[in-house]
Amino acid sequence: MTKEQLVEQIKKKQSFLCVGLDVDLDKIPQHLVALDDPIFEFNKQIIDATHHLAVAYKPNIAFYEAYGIKGWQALQKTITYLNTTYPEIFTIADAKRGDIGNTSTRYAKAFFEDLNFDSITVAPYMGIDSVEPFLAFEDKFTIMLALTSNIGGLDFQTLKIGNEELYKKVLRQSLTWKNSNQLMYVVGATRPEYFKEIRAIVPNHFLLVPGVGAQGGSLSEVCKYGLNEDIGLLVNSTRGIIYASNQLDFAEKALEKALELQQEMKNYV
Amino acid sequence: MTKEQLVEQIKKKQSFLCVGLDVDLDKIPQHLVALDDPIFEFNKQIIDATHHLAVAYKPNIAFYEAYGIKGWQALQKTITYLNTTYPEIFTIADAKRGDIGNTSTRYAKAFFEDLNFDSITVAPYMGIDSVEPFLAFEDKFTIMLALTSNIGGLDFQTLKIGNEELYKKVLRQSLTWKNSNQLMYVVGATRPEYFKEIRAIVPNHFLLVPGVGAQGGSLSEVCKYGLNEDIGLLVNSTRGIIYASNQLDFAEKALEKALELQQEMKNYV
Repeated sequence: MTKEQLVEQIKKKQSFLCVGLDVDLDKIPQHLVALDDPIFEFNKQIIDATHHLAVAYKPNIAFYEAYGIKGWQALQKTITYLNTTYPEIFTIADAKRGDIGNTSTRYAKAFFEDLNFDSITVAPYMGIDSVEPFLAFEDKFTIMLALTSNIGGLDFQTLKIGNEELYKKVLRQSLTWKNSNQLMYVVGATRPEYFKEIRAIVPNHFLLVPGVGAQGGSLSEVCKYGLNEDIGLLVNSTRGIIYASNQLDFAEKALEKALELQQEMKNYV
Repeated sequence: MTKEQLVEQIKKKQSFLCVGLDVDLDKIPQHLVALDDPIFEFNKQIIDATHHLAVAYKPNIAFYEAYGIKGWQALQKTITYLNTTYPEIFTIADAKRGDIGNTSTRYAKAFFEDLNFDSITVAPYMGIDSVEPFLAFEDKFTIMLALTSNIGGLDFQTLKIGNEELYKKVLRQSLTWKNSNQLMYVVGATRPEYFKEIRAIVPNHFLLVPGVGAQGGSLSEVCKYGLNEDIGLLVNSTRGIIYASNQLDFAEKALEKALELQQEMKNYV
């Protein structure tokens, strides 16, 4: 998918909502657990209920790996369902990968070619040759961790290198890498005070923003400095949507919660 | 596995060799490719040929993910084979994982419980709550990236935070985390000049050292400052051993190359 196609979808749906698909068999409705592939069935119903309100879906790969082969089968079915039924949707493999060059190339092939995701999240610690292999894939996006929403996000990311925090160095340095226009960045919604300075460094790139909802981030705070002329934000909600109910009405409740967010988002589009 | 068991194995085998299992179907002998599970068959023959010389095996998870479900099946068979046939061997899932707490717990379960690896490599960028979930598993080890062997390892890891490089902050900070005695660290063999200062910060922890062989690192340089009283090193070789030949004699050639390294290592044990 191209950036233009993503922006077009955002304008059409009046939404920049990303729905996280972190499926935990202990949290989904019990009537699904007996099915042949409860993870896929849960995802399918969530997607069918919310696809007109969300522009992106983000399976968190850990939740699939935790179920072994069955988890991978559910992941394959989910991405295939998204790609065939809702091809306009932007898909994110939330995998936080990154390794030396020949290994990163393998990860890139796994997620961009075999599974055919539009994008993947990666970690920056290993630098240029751990990320450029992902950037080599045309019309695919590499979403690099910049400033994360968790407590430990302050352990290293905000340490000062000279006059500037590490996450800013990471942003600046990455702009010099080959095909850096295919980068996006993870910036946590729990840190709205940082968005202004981040936008000064990467005015044109999309930011993937987790942490709205269960983690306590505020949409209006994020939008205040995060928006750019292409909107430039993908705001993720996971637990607030997919676990709004664990009863028969889970898909309806997910729709309601997604609609609440979309109604707030449309004011900014 | 406990640290004591690992040290005992090192002393018995007079070796601290780790063999990387990065299986690429384009590089393995052609006579294996036609088999039902060529990846597992290759691994099995490499392991059978070298198990008396190596104390650890390190499947690089990217190479398995790149083959989808078949890759995961081969990984499962490989770790099961190692755990049942050679239970004294220390196993490393080279996965470079790391995410917010509930997600890291999922990765930990996948690799420590379902696959039953003894250890996993993780990335430090997201800080304490991305790593502690791995450390919560008893008799399992979490091998955190400190100073990596690749070119990009110098992009961020050696930036100065005040008077000290980032990788040193990462080492020091991690020592304050819960169960930090279950940490090991990745330090590239291509950076022997750093080992002295690293040992000043983490004198007792094991270091996993990739980069000997194809990447140009020297075993004697690494040993000079890297060894501690428990040996404290796992030196990895991948391509130099597993791809020593791509003919019928690949396992014999792997044995020869592993023996060369072990013969050099025994002088240090």
